[in-house]
Amino acid sequence: MTRVRMDLFVSLDGYTPSPEDPPGNPMGEDWGRLTEAYVATRTFREKVFGDTSRAGTTGVDDAFASAFFEGVGAEIMGAAMFGLHSFPDDPDWKGWWGDTPPFGTPVYVLTHQAPKEPIAMDGGTTFHFRAGAIEDVLAEATGAAGDLDVRIGGGYRTAQAFLRAGLVDDLHLQVAPIFLGRGNRLWDDLVGLDRTHTVTSQVAESGVIHVVARR
Amino acid sequence: MTRVRMDLFVSLDGYTPSPEDPPGNPMGEDWGRLTEAYVATRTFREKVFGDTSRAGTTGVDDAFASAFFEGVGAEIMGAAMFGLHSFPDDPDWKGWWGDTPPFGTPVYVLTHQAPKEPIAMDGGTTFHFRAGAIEDVLAEATGAAGDLDVRIGGGYRTAQAFLRAGLVDDLHLQVAPIFLGRGNRLWDDLVGLDRTHTVTSQVAESGVIHVVARR
Repeated sequence: MTRVRMDLFVSLDGYTPSPEDPPGNPMGEDWGRLTEAYVATRTFREKVFGDTSRAGTTGVDDAFASAFFEGVGAEIMGAAMFGLHSFPDDPDWKGWWGDTPPFGTPVYVLTHQAPKEPIAMDGGTTFHFRAGAIEDVLAEATGAAGDLDVRIGGGYRTAQAFLRAGLVDDLHLQVAPIFLGRGNRLWDDLVGLDRTHTVTSQVAESGVIHVVARR
Repeated sequence: MTRVRMDLFVSLDGYTPSPEDPPGNPMGEDWGRLTEAYVATRTFREKVFGDTSRAGTTGVDDAFASAFFEGVGAEIMGAAMFGLHSFPDDPDWKGWWGDTPPFGTPVYVLTHQAPKEPIAMDGGTTFHFRAGAIEDVLAEATGAAGDLDVRIGGGYRTAQAFLRAGLVDDLHLQVAPIFLGRGNRLWDDLVGLDRTHTVTSQVAESGVIHVVARR
């Protein structure tokens, strides 16, 4: 049974970096602090950097990082996360992830730009571009995922749309114990979530709090 | 060496109940949900309800509840927490805690009302009423505490004043994994706290996340 999953990075005071981050620099200072523990994991280093030296942290952060890459049959992301807003005039732009993106599934990119042909990458990732309603794109992704899950990959505005529509079954929040005081206010999108989802938490060796809300 | 301590109840989205709670009802619905795990502890039942049956939860919540009552030599609280705003015309009002309040120390109540004589209660608690600057009241409380700590007891506006003035050495947040979406926005008062304090977290059996920020 396909479930709709989402993983987000957030500070304890509920902020994710704002779209005012410098174009072409999706890894600003705040973002770096939020993702530091994840980027340090062995799984991230293997899957995203292709580092096979088995360096990187193990433990709770790595267990969540590993789960992040398992059981996903299709992905949905926003145009900004794919990079369409940063490189609007480059017809050959193929995302931030190099020739072999770490998804290995169909990836549906939400965009209001002119229709664009799918892009097949190495490693099983194919980027599709869709301008329809999120419910319609989710239905298509669910069909493509088979028995596996659909992941909503971000960025923030895409996540917000799915959260506010009540479409997320399993939400994993990687909460950094920092108080940023700036950015998008994710907590505002989750009011009352504990009434529809069961919320559990676990603290990693890094100090990061992993909060899981499961419908 | 005296340290300035504070314990607060907050939802994961950073809210504590608002002063618009009904007068005379400091235990509204939100407050009840935030304090549920604490009120269920064996320590709270013993210390506040006088329940000596040894009923109540043990474990992480109870360890924090027990620490709450240890090592405090003086307390500071706001007029609203003492109840002066709820019972402004009752000259015999002695707080919410009955004849034997659980403090057992001098308690400094911040108030702008007319000077008021101290009230000595059973069990070692004496309520003093002060109209001075928080720094001056803190200096007096520190003197009274001897080698023990000073606790800032609340309510929210009192806590906010001490937090924003940078006067709190040890902050314990009992974070309920709920998303209230209403109340006072405590997170706004803590921006950058992780740069001056070391933040550690622990999840209790109840699901409550205990976050400690220590200077």
